[in-house]
Amino acid sequence: MKIAILPGDGIGPEIIAQAVKVLNVLGEQFELESAPVGGAGYAAHGHPLPEGTLALAKAADAVLFGAVGDYQYDTLERALRPEQAILGLRKNLGLFANLRPAILYPQLANASTLKPEVVSGLDILIIRELTGDIYFGQPRGVRECPDGAFKGQREGYDTMRYAEGEIRRIAHVAFQAAQKRDKRLTSVDKANVLETFQFWRDIVTDVHKEYPDVALEHMYVDNAAMQLVRAPKKFDVLVTGNMFGDILSDQASMLTGSIGMLPSASLDANNKGLYEPSHGSAPDIAGKGIANPLATILSAAMMLRYSLNRAEQADRIENAVKHVLSQGLRTADIYEAGTTKVGTEQMGDAVVKAL
Amino acid sequence: MKIAILPGDGIGPEIIAQAVKVLNVLGEQFELESAPVGGAGYAAHGHPLPEGTLALAKAADAVLFGAVGDYQYDTLERALRPEQAILGLRKNLGLFANLRPAILYPQLANASTLKPEVVSGLDILIIRELTGDIYFGQPRGVRECPDGAFKGQREGYDTMRYAEGEIRRIAHVAFQAAQKRDKRLTSVDKANVLETFQFWRDIVTDVHKEYPDVALEHMYVDNAAMQLVRAPKKFDVLVTGNMFGDILSDQASMLTGSIGMLPSASLDANNKGLYEPSHGSAPDIAGKGIANPLATILSAAMMLRYSLNRAEQADRIENAVKHVLSQGLRTADIYEAGTTKVGTEQMGDAVVKAL
Ligand SMILES: CC(C)[C@H](C(=O)O)[C@@H](O)C(=O)O
Ligand SMILES: CC(C)[C@H](C(=O)O)[C@@H](O)C(=O)O
Repeated sequence: MKIAILPGDGIGPEIIAQAVKVLNVLGEQFELESAPVGGAGYAAHGHPLPEGTLALAKAADAVLFGAVGDYQYDTLERALRPEQAILGLRKNLGLFANLRPAILYPQLANASTLKPEVVSGLDILIIRELTGDIYFGQPRGVRECPDGAFKGQREGYDTMRYAEGEIRRIAHVAFQAAQKRDKRLTSVDKANVLETFQFWRDIVTDVHKEYPDVALEHMYVDNAAMQLVRAPKKFDVLVTGNMFGDILSDQASMLTGSIGMLPSASLDANNKGLYEPSHGSAPDIAGKGIANPLATILSAAMMLRYSLNRAEQADRIENAVKHVLSQGLRTADIYEAGTTKVGTEQMGDAVVKAL
Repeated sequence: MKIAILPGDGIGPEIIAQAVKVLNVLGEQFELESAPVGGAGYAAHGHPLPEGTLALAKAADAVLFGAVGDYQYDTLERALRPEQAILGLRKNLGLFANLRPAILYPQLANASTLKPEVVSGLDILIIRELTGDIYFGQPRGVRECPDGAFKGQREGYDTMRYAEGEIRRIAHVAFQAAQKRDKRLTSVDKANVLETFQFWRDIVTDVHKEYPDVALEHMYVDNAAMQLVRAPKKFDVLVTGNMFGDILSDQASMLTGSIGMLPSASLDANNKGLYEPSHGSAPDIAGKGIANPLATILSAAMMLRYSLNRAEQADRIENAVKHVLSQGLRTADIYEAGTTKVGTEQMGDAVVKAL
């Protein structure tokens, strides 16, 4: 089993180092190979997704990704900016299914800005389509406005689109995920305004026929953003498009108050995947040794579960993380009075020890 | 001064009746004329926005709108569904600037699902562009997918677009609103992915030159959705496009826990406007006399301020609302132990009395 390790920028290398430490003590024969990505890719090879990095990611059985982005790359032209590496990896590897759990660990119930009774025990799964929608639709650009009151002016434009097969395959992923949980799926769309999402609703409704044991509900995206604030625990699994999923999955993760704890998986049709923490590269705290490595370690656990067929190893890591939380160990982002503040390495070491 | 009164469906007629009562005791010479809209428009004339209703709205100096939508219209084809009336009014009246305050009244601090320290004193203003973006962009529809892996299948598609002048005029509204408040504007976009919103960012940055006294910050929409959960009080004014604004303004209003209190204004280039509560038609409680009329009454206050040049009357109404809250009167949606539960009419009467 070959794992591509792409640390990236900011806190990426520090947190990835802890996940690698964890992988190395499992007693498995993994081949780990690293390559630069994002700003580090640009610095090394003039491109955020260097050819060698993409080739490695393609050849590997799974990709463990840190985070990308740092101040010095902010002024580059868009095609060279770090986040293009993420978009390029998703598209080139066909990683169409993004799984974003939003879980509030009981030990961290106070971390949320929401009242404990609203979020304690929160455990929802957001499934975001990741290779379609307005993210990649053509045509797009800046052109002369062809009609209407602003005819002749410049206008920016993009194309939102979803083909039937694209919707079907993400719907299957979502219904199957719901089957393994509480059997309730909320499909989020904007069918009252968008043709793309009326079509989305029609296709999801059709796929539902194959999953009669799952209760399907349709919800408009504006309402979903409200319900995530009002009563987030009412959800089980949510599925939506790339753009709405970008917004809602970040909103949902912030409900927990501990985004430093949340992993993510982005899967292709054969369960090959890219695994990364839900948080960003946090350049402001990079190199200080204080970043929380748990989201990355839990991403490695997801990798073991989904791509490497090592469910028990995944369980072991997840239990080890719960154990260190119960021991009261906290990085700065989740620290509260009465717990023990530790740095990135100490946290990684504690998980290794708990294993 | 002529005011078009469009009660609509569900609780619309009940809450509008209270706002009309309030308008009638101000001692002003307003001419009020009603017409059916939404489901009621369809029931009366076969269309959610009947010709006569649109003509009235066009002829009036301002429009006071209740809410639209009810179960029996859910199965109509999209073009005849109640919400098409809203889209039609916005487009036909050129109501491009939607002002959505999210205010947490101190008396209702407990209503929020967020911790008091996170939201008490919340007072943000979301300005949403309302006649452009993917809501109205052409082409759109369902077609044969022209290229890529799904070529030949059916696909749904829509066009996102913003012309320079469209961005400029909403940016001016936003900068001017910020000047009257804390002089901080957050422009929300997705410039890292969308051409439309890279263009948006460029134009907003350019308009900023005319408002050097306002601090401008650009923020990605996914981050904005997170910051609204993490630290909503850090915002002053937010401005964004139609689609992102739909999501974020609803999310923000739910932060207060009292969406029954929140008014909205939708303005054209000459400050003619449509005023409506931020909440919906709530068909489940329609006719029960328990709906909260305060958002509609406060919408009437916004109407007096923005379209009818009666700032003092607006102040009077807003103070009257604060007064009844201080008296402890609450409709069911904002009721808590120790306060006095009242119905829709009683609440309207209390505001009238406070005036
Ligand atoms: C960096 C950006 C392109 C990306 C996205 O919008 O998908 C990020 O926000 C994410 O959610 O992974
Ligand atoms: C009903 C719908 C078309 C409308 C919108 O999306 O604009 C509503 O959600 C709103 O925000 O007023």
